[in-house]
Amino acid sequence: MTKENISDIIKFDAKGLIPAIVQDYKSKEILMQAFMNEEALKITLKTNLAHYFSRSKNRLWQKGETSGQTQKIKEILIDCDGDSLILRVEQNGVACHTGRKSCFYRKIDKDGNLEINQEILVSEEELYGKK
Amino acid sequence: MTKENISDIIKFDAKGLIPAIVQDYKSKEILMQAFMNEEALKITLKTNLAHYFSRSKNRLWQKGETSGQTQKIKEILIDCDGDSLILRVEQNGVACHTGRKSCFYRKIDKDGNLEINQEILVSEEELYGKK
Repeated sequence: MTKENISDIIKFDAKGLIPAIVQDYKSKEILMQAFMNEEALKITLKTNLAHYFSRSKNRLWQKGETSGQTQKIKEILIDCDGDSLILRVEQNGVACHTGRKSCFYRKIDKDGNLEINQEILVSEEELYGKK
Repeated sequence: MTKENISDIIKFDAKGLIPAIVQDYKSKEILMQAFMNEEALKITLKTNLAHYFSRSKNRLWQKGETSGQTQKIKEILIDCDGDSLILRVEQNGVACHTGRKSCFYRKIDKDGNLEINQEILVSEEELYGKK
């Protein structure tokens, strides 16, 4: 029996995108969630650096292209339905544009109120240059 | 200053959905990824049991409603952009319909070939009844 290939099972949505969950390969912390198109996945597999499709900029982007906060791929997993990916990465610096390690820095309480549970490690000036 | 509320920042997509990443609250393993609509999130916050919106069935569903493999909510987080959620849960049994703990049981190698890295813990007969 030949091995199953990703092209046999991967399902992009109507817009050609698939969610990519980004997890720190050591601590298992979830750092962010973005979307990939077929090109982003191909380039990521080829370069070993995380690339995504930006829905706001409507183009491919390499994580860290401006901020330097790149993500080195350690492992990529796909789910049972073929419509979701996990990228296990080595994060250079921080994942969040706010300067926090993870983008998921707010907890929702029973009443829907938000509580910040992570500190800022790097200033936005350091990440994106002084204005 | 009053606390930020989830209703101020949450962004559902054009179909009224938001990705929900489900993580084991103890082991930090990512178990699955599903979608929620506003109703699913409200019922989840109210009942403390994970509910999702099924795109294939086009209806609300409680995780485990058929299989008994329910998810008790320990914590819900939202990301910087307000367009992605993490549910930290206590998983009753297994998350995947294949009987594996996590739906992400296949690793993608450099050539795009898949390798199964998790064993089946519960048979589909046990989960969904004998045929």
